[in-house]
Amino acid sequence: MKGYHVAVVGATGAVGQQMLHTLEERNFPIEKLTLLSSERSAGKKIMYKGQEYTVEKAEPAKFDGVQIALFSAGGGVSKELAPEAAKRGAIVVDNTSAFRMDPNVPLVVPEVNKSDLNGHNGIIANPNCSTIQMVVALEPIRQKFGLSKIIVSTYQAVSGAGAAAIEELESQSQAILNKEEFTPGILPVKGDKKHYQIAFNAIPQIDKFEDNGFTFEELKMINETKKIMHAPDLQVAATCVRLPVVTGHSESVYIEIEDENVNVQDIKALLQNAPGVVLQDKPEEQLYPMPANCVGLNDVFVGRIRKDLDNKKGFHLWVVSDNLLKGAAWNSVQIAESLVELGIVK
Amino acid sequence: MKGYHVAVVGATGAVGQQMLHTLEERNFPIEKLTLLSSERSAGKKIMYKGQEYTVEKAEPAKFDGVQIALFSAGGGVSKELAPEAAKRGAIVVDNTSAFRMDPNVPLVVPEVNKSDLNGHNGIIANPNCSTIQMVVALEPIRQKFGLSKIIVSTYQAVSGAGAAAIEELESQSQAILNKEEFTPGILPVKGDKKHYQIAFNAIPQIDKFEDNGFTFEELKMINETKKIMHAPDLQVAATCVRLPVVTGHSESVYIEIEDENVNVQDIKALLQNAPGVVLQDKPEEQLYPMPANCVGLNDVFVGRIRKDLDNKKGFHLWVVSDNLLKGAAWNSVQIAESLVELGIVK
Repeated sequence: MKGYHVAVVGATGAVGQQMLHTLEERNFPIEKLTLLSSERSAGKKIMYKGQEYTVEKAEPAKFDGVQIALFSAGGGVSKELAPEAAKRGAIVVDNTSAFRMDPNVPLVVPEVNKSDLNGHNGIIANPNCSTIQMVVALEPIRQKFGLSKIIVSTYQAVSGAGAAAIEELESQSQAILNKEEFTPGILPVKGDKKHYQIAFNAIPQIDKFEDNGFTFEELKMINETKKIMHAPDLQVAATCVRLPVVTGHSESVYIEIEDENVNVQDIKALLQNAPGVVLQDKPEEQLYPMPANCVGLNDVFVGRIRKDLDNKKGFHLWVVSDNLLKGAAWNSVQIAESLVELGIVK
Repeated sequence: MKGYHVAVVGATGAVGQQMLHTLEERNFPIEKLTLLSSERSAGKKIMYKGQEYTVEKAEPAKFDGVQIALFSAGGGVSKELAPEAAKRGAIVVDNTSAFRMDPNVPLVVPEVNKSDLNGHNGIIANPNCSTIQMVVALEPIRQKFGLSKIIVSTYQAVSGAGAAAIEELESQSQAILNKEEFTPGILPVKGDKKHYQIAFNAIPQIDKFEDNGFTFEELKMINETKKIMHAPDLQVAATCVRLPVVTGHSESVYIEIEDENVNVQDIKALLQNAPGVVLQDKPEEQLYPMPANCVGLNDVFVGRIRKDLDNKKGFHLWVVSDNLLKGAAWNSVQIAESLVELGIVK
């Protein structure tokens, strides 16, 4: 088996670490591995398949000879270095929002639009975590029954906001249990003005606000879903909420399909065999997806499927997935595997 | 000021305690107070306005002479004793689901349908916590702009499931922070077969499942909303989820109104002056309602109001309230105050 020169940018971060775990677990064909980071983390040692690697400072020349570069070091780093990597012949899989809506950049969830990879110009974007799990669950429905409308309310874990947010949830939870004082410093958005308690609370803000009152996170779900599904006329609305959950995003999804003769059993039968989906839907056994049960698994879990009581074309679903895996690292590695499978990277 | 003979049934429970706090805080005109409970809790001492009361076992004869009886001791107790209390001339305000959908029983949220109290036959039902806060926020909109559809996803606190559920959340949270084992025993539903981790998790089940895949909690929201608003044709759908939050229910609400010329500013101006509502909606200042900020307050907090990007008649709102107060104790006491105000209790 041929091996590739792979670079991981942001190798010391939460998602970068998950990417390395996933590459190892999938036994991805790596001939040479280059681990890159900010200057601050450069010099750190990381083990991969029993071998020690030293993390180097990310800069353009480091991409010479790299074939696949997995970026997850923030939008600023991607904007600066992804074009440099691409210029040197690497195919970039970028996990930030920097290029997602660029019409020249494919935005890919392999179960949904793998063939879009063929149109790449050196950079491929990995969608937002909350978008990925939703489109994996809904694309089979769209293809078979048509899809006209999505209204989603999310229940998102703090690990999407990085390691510091996990630490904040844990230390705040302990402080509250001890009846001690604490000062929020990270959530809801590190770079925003105000910070709020996340432990034993729910914060209806993820990312900053746009002028229309939606947050960027909500607009990402709206715009990315249409792009990935090639469905510009699909109606999508989102409300994104951060919860005191470490890992595992949940979504309460209402959809309207085009075919009015579909019942719950049809949707269940479809999702039972859908790629990347695990159906967990037996109310009589209290079987439904929950974030605590999805951690460390690559699948998207779907349950609570109900037909709307008023609209024959309306259905409700509950969709859960590990936001660091299918929502980030696994989808990126899956794109890399697809590049190999389709012969796009040679 | 005339005083009344008031009985509180379930006086030692979480909601019963809140009812007594609220009666005291509102300086409700009480001439005689009778505190009742199950046999197990009978004999306990409770302070009210500096005076000690002994809790007595609830039985029919205890309602002789009682004018207002506030019930919150479970559906079984209400089914057995509320008719007995009514037979003896008391007006029952029942906080359980026992009589809510009975066509002879008014289901009342004073801000919405206070005049329904006039049609009582001795029993008045207090709606489900998650229903109350939603109808307080939506009724002004329905009256001014028409309302055709509601799709709600809830984010519900554990205190709605009683004191044992609060204890379970706290002890589980501590066990997880200590990396210790634990065995769930209460949530999602004490009387159901399986119990799941609530700490750092989200459970998409509140109350048991109906055959159509909806939970009773979801059907309560659907059916009670139509009854309270006198709107049998209103389309309502609900997905109810339990969160690791002690007190304070949140709701992500999508509505469709009848008037297509309404903008966000119109809705804000309306809710700014709506009874029982506090508008908290300044995205530019990161001002929006959160459960951690609503505890101990009687109001319903509304924010994140946005116009749907596709449907001119569609709006999104985020509604938060203390589920033990407006969701239970305060709404019950408010009904009692309305009974006095309307001269229904004499």
